[in-house]
Amino acid sequence: MERADHPMAEFVLGIDGGGTKLAAVLENLQTGEQFSLSTDGGINSIIDDPEDSRRHLRSMIEDIVILLSAKEGTLSGICIGSASVMTDYEKNHWCEELLSQSFPGVPIGAVTDSRIALEGALRGEPGAIVIAGTGSISLSKDSLGQMKRCGGWGSLFGDEGSGYWIGCESLRAVAKHWDGRGDATLLTDRLLEKLQVSTFEGIIQKVYGEMDRKEVASLSVITGECAADRDPAAMQIVEEAGAHLACLASTILEQTVWESKPLLSYAGGVFRMGEQMKRSFLSHLGPWNSVLTEPHEQPAYGAVLLALRMKEAARY
Amino acid sequence: MERADHPMAEFVLGIDGGGTKLAAVLENLQTGEQFSLSTDGGINSIIDDPEDSRRHLRSMIEDIVILLSAKEGTLSGICIGSASVMTDYEKNHWCEELLSQSFPGVPIGAVTDSRIALEGALRGEPGAIVIAGTGSISLSKDSLGQMKRCGGWGSLFGDEGSGYWIGCESLRAVAKHWDGRGDATLLTDRLLEKLQVSTFEGIIQKVYGEMDRKEVASLSVITGECAADRDPAAMQIVEEAGAHLACLASTILEQTVWESKPLLSYAGGVFRMGEQMKRSFLSHLGPWNSVLTEPHEQPAYGAVLLALRMKEAARY
Repeated sequence: MERADHPMAEFVLGIDGGGTKLAAVLENLQTGEQFSLSTDGGINSIIDDPEDSRRHLRSMIEDIVILLSAKEGTLSGICIGSASVMTDYEKNHWCEELLSQSFPGVPIGAVTDSRIALEGALRGEPGAIVIAGTGSISLSKDSLGQMKRCGGWGSLFGDEGSGYWIGCESLRAVAKHWDGRGDATLLTDRLLEKLQVSTFEGIIQKVYGEMDRKEVASLSVITGECAADRDPAAMQIVEEAGAHLACLASTILEQTVWESKPLLSYAGGVFRMGEQMKRSFLSHLGPWNSVLTEPHEQPAYGAVLLALRMKEAARY
Repeated sequence: MERADHPMAEFVLGIDGGGTKLAAVLENLQTGEQFSLSTDGGINSIIDDPEDSRRHLRSMIEDIVILLSAKEGTLSGICIGSASVMTDYEKNHWCEELLSQSFPGVPIGAVTDSRIALEGALRGEPGAIVIAGTGSISLSKDSLGQMKRCGGWGSLFGDEGSGYWIGCESLRAVAKHWDGRGDATLLTDRLLEKLQVSTFEGIIQKVYGEMDRKEVASLSVITGECAADRDPAAMQIVEEAGAHLACLASTILEQTVWESKPLLSYAGGVFRMGEQMKRSFLSHLGPWNSVLTEPHEQPAYGAVLLALRMKEAARY
């Protein structure tokens, strides 16, 4: 009766297929025990060599196979969340293919990165999330599971309040100071230092010649530091970013009829920029600031919740 | 004594090396007579096949050689103005090489496109110009020939009020209407029609998938039409664009000590968008609106003036 004493453990797998790293959570359905895994490289079919993305996911799958084997476990559901699922589905279908080769017969779901962030932050409860990393987007889910989005249309159509937006606004503030349209700002010296150039033209050459959207977005860290040092130009940018992000959140909260008080959470590097950013965001939320809640769980755990739900839905 | 009766005519050549077309003016220094030439294709080493740019310039040079031969003329100075001279000189040095192969020993100057626009618009007089095409820039020259610029740092650093800026702001207005952050706008239906798509997602796919900066800038024509039809969102964008362009102009006018009242002119497609644009520009110029003057001559003529000045300078 060895088998009955030690039945195969049943797991579900959630993967956060980020652009710079992959994170996975394996949950044991019987014990609730969770195992976290991560890799250094991410999934980014646009910027990186597609073969790199494949290698990163393959490497993670190998780790998962080893872990499952050690735990004498089987997989009964997988969900992967990734930035390019919506806009670039054809190209990214390979994620599911790779997973299904290693885990044949296991149901696999693929959703956007914002979806798993929402599920993770609110532990699957109804509500909304604002995400401000390189881009910005707001996403909500009502009690019937109906989704809405606001923003997230990319840099040409908006991404207001995102890291990229803050980076560009900061470059503009430096340009305006340089050619006399704007006041002096700490941003000039800090960006010169950060980019290791000695003139404004050096910044221009560096930005256009070498930097992608993600790197421009990373300049927002400098903006946060200058705002903390009470530089008026930086403070204004941070203030406006907070207002834009609050607009994304309040718009989506207002568009939904909530059965009970919804939760609102947040994610992304912009919210780690400093106190002023959070203050601005809160103040522009108006009455909705009462529903703000710290994110409960990581996006990879949100993917676990979705994998579980898929598995339950498949029963009926 | 045939030679004395018919001395070789002396000409200078100015070339406007635009991105979509080339325009040249040949001026007979004895008679003041001018000949204009143009080609369909332009010089754009970034977007087009470099060989196309070379072919366009070669074709124009052939026409000039034929014309000079028919007029029994010699060339004593050339100036070419082109957008990429400042930022991308190495790559574009081929323009001067091609010209010097065909006109050996003739002094050749290469300047930015905004410089020849300034010289043409003000017929070489001191003053300033605001140029708003795909990008935006302001340039001035005082009575000592000293130059200043404001703006023109490209889309990441500004280009506020440019066609590209107007195009992006219009796309943002449509996105905000679509996801509930902004009011309804005529821009939505007009852009759907213009881009021949049926949904907002169709606009996104079209813009990111197929359109370059110049094509996004060309959407500003729609914005001008919607503003003329009194669409509030379009009118606000046009109003702000006018304010940005006026800021470029007034900043540069204020930075210079003028011996006499300076002239201010303008160029570029944005100023042909409609009455509201010009009204907004004028109203935001404040006291400087008294110095606004219609552009006198085309940029290619500005290049002729610079070629003449180089020739004179070479005498001493």
